[in-house]
Amino acid sequence: MLEITDIIGIIAFAISGFVVGVRHKLDLLGVLISTFLTALGGGILRDVIANIPIYSFTNIFPGLVVFCVFLIGIVFKLYKFDFNNKFFLIFDSIGLVSFSISGSIVAINSEFNIFGVIFLSFITAVGGGMLRDILINQVPFILKEEFYGSISILIAFLLFIFGINDIVIISIFILGLILRLIAYIKGWKLPII
Amino acid sequence: MLEITDIIGIIAFAISGFVVGVRHKLDLLGVLISTFLTALGGGILRDVIANIPIYSFTNIFPGLVVFCVFLIGIVFKLYKFDFNNKFFLIFDSIGLVSFSISGSIVAINSEFNIFGVIFLSFITAVGGGMLRDILINQVPFILKEEFYGSISILIAFLLFIFGINDIVIISIFILGLILRLIAYIKGWKLPII
Amino acid sequence: MLEITDIIGIIAFAISGFVVGVRHKLDLLGVLISTFLTALGGGILRDVIANIPIYSFTNIFPGLVVFCVFLIGIVFKLYKFDFNNKFFLIFDSIGLVSFSISGSIVAINSEFNIFGVIFLSFITAVGGGMLRDILINQVPFILKEEFYGSISILIAFLLFIFGINDIVIISIFILGLILRLIAYIKGWKLPII
Repeated sequence: MLEITDIIGIIAFAISGFVVGVRHKLDLLGVLISTFLTALGGGILRDVIANIPIYSFTNIFPGLVVFCVFLIGIVFKLYKFDFNNKFFLIFDSIGLVSFSISGSIVAINSEFNIFGVIFLSFITAVGGGMLRDILINQVPFILKEEFYGSISILIAFLLFIFGINDIVIISIFILGLILRLIAYIKGWKLPII
Repeated sequence: MLEITDIIGIIAFAISGFVVGVRHKLDLLGVLISTFLTALGGGILRDVIANIPIYSFTNIFPGLVVFCVFLIGIVFKLYKFDFNNKFFLIFDSIGLVSFSISGSIVAINSEFNIFGVIFLSFITAVGGGMLRDILINQVPFILKEEFYGSISILIAFLLFIFGINDIVIISIFILGLILRLIAYIKGWKLPII
Repeated sequence: MLEITDIIGIIAFAISGFVVGVRHKLDLLGVLISTFLTALGGGILRDVIANIPIYSFTNIFPGLVVFCVFLIGIVFKLYKFDFNNKFFLIFDSIGLVSFSISGSIVAINSEFNIFGVIFLSFITAVGGGMLRDILINQVPFILKEEFYGSISILIAFLLFIFGINDIVIISIFILGLILRLIAYIKGWKLPII
């Protein structure tokens, strides 16, 4: 199941990378980099840090999906895309939750402690967008869009406590997704100290 | 002994990450990231580059210390902190020297050459602060605060020459600490070409 | 043969790092960092990602070459250097092509797929300059100088298709070099979407 949600996440993240690249007036290569980095960067960081083979370099599927998004994006002028689009929001939320879970599982399997699990969950979910924002010299969205990263941390925490099994994963998946959507709709923010 | 100085360093770096985060008006999550990244980021980079298990992901103590600093920081409004505070300066200098030594030792044990030892010493000591500054989109302090990084390089150089043994480490520790404090008090700067 | 072209590339990249550092008014340490990072950063990233021993930390030669460039740069006031200088252009192009080939070969030997090979080729060739630009808080040149990175991608693609053998490597080397020089002279640009 996680593979399907992972692909949905990769699509959502690739779209966001594509649109951000075009809006920053990058050339074709720049947009290509932005698309791939946003979609696959988090997973690459996860695997380098956990010291396991890099998933998207040994499996062809993720890269192909991103490349298709890139082509479709050019043909259908995806950059006129509205980020408040409901479908995009749901896709993006699925990506956030799915990537957080995959990061947590890799960390738990690597016998990381609670801080390591949270770190890897977070990096997997938001690392791609962070790398893109650093590249185009913006303050990363994660430091400004408040509730987004918190959900990744919460997921890691719950998985660390309850352990990896199918029921836990499905429950956390649904919980994370609902929380993200409510947070978005209600405009929840974290306090500033 | 190095473990004690390491903890002192982690405390100092966590405080600086916390204060910088608050001053940049990051929200609660952003401040948390800034605190952890500044304190533990250098060590994580060190272990990933040297390809050894990540210390702060397999030992719970460093993360707990950082988390305590974060909580205490909020309760005691640590952001009103004066960075020219004498205690902070001494703590921070101990961190710089201690992290440089631990980076050098890991590099020497990995049989890196002189450039690798200097690189790892430097990355361990200033990598956390660098990552934080990149994230909040500032020119890293290390490129502006001149003498700070030089001490890390000097320590790596001396350890590479004289080898790892207790007397050497203690001597270099004291030398580095004194040099850092004198440099600060006298306002030593490196020349601009 | 690749070792000679690698050294030429390291020299060219070290010069560019040195000049950029001085022009940004970094102090002596900052210029040193900029010089080393630009020249060796791409290779370090390559080896960390491919999980192999870091070449410039186990062989003394690359670091020595960079250090010599740094010393010569100070003595001969290399920062008055004209980047449109023909010699520099040719050196820099040799570096681009040589680093792209070495990155591709490492990736192919690590059994990466096509996306992994392109990624590693690209990171090896432009990663050093990217790190430097991120550090000094600029939008990386690679997102603005259009045709540069494309050549790295093309080289990776061709090597992946035709496999690693001497004739292929030499042919791709010459092709990449000519293409880069023509692109520069003709001012080829990639389209903006």
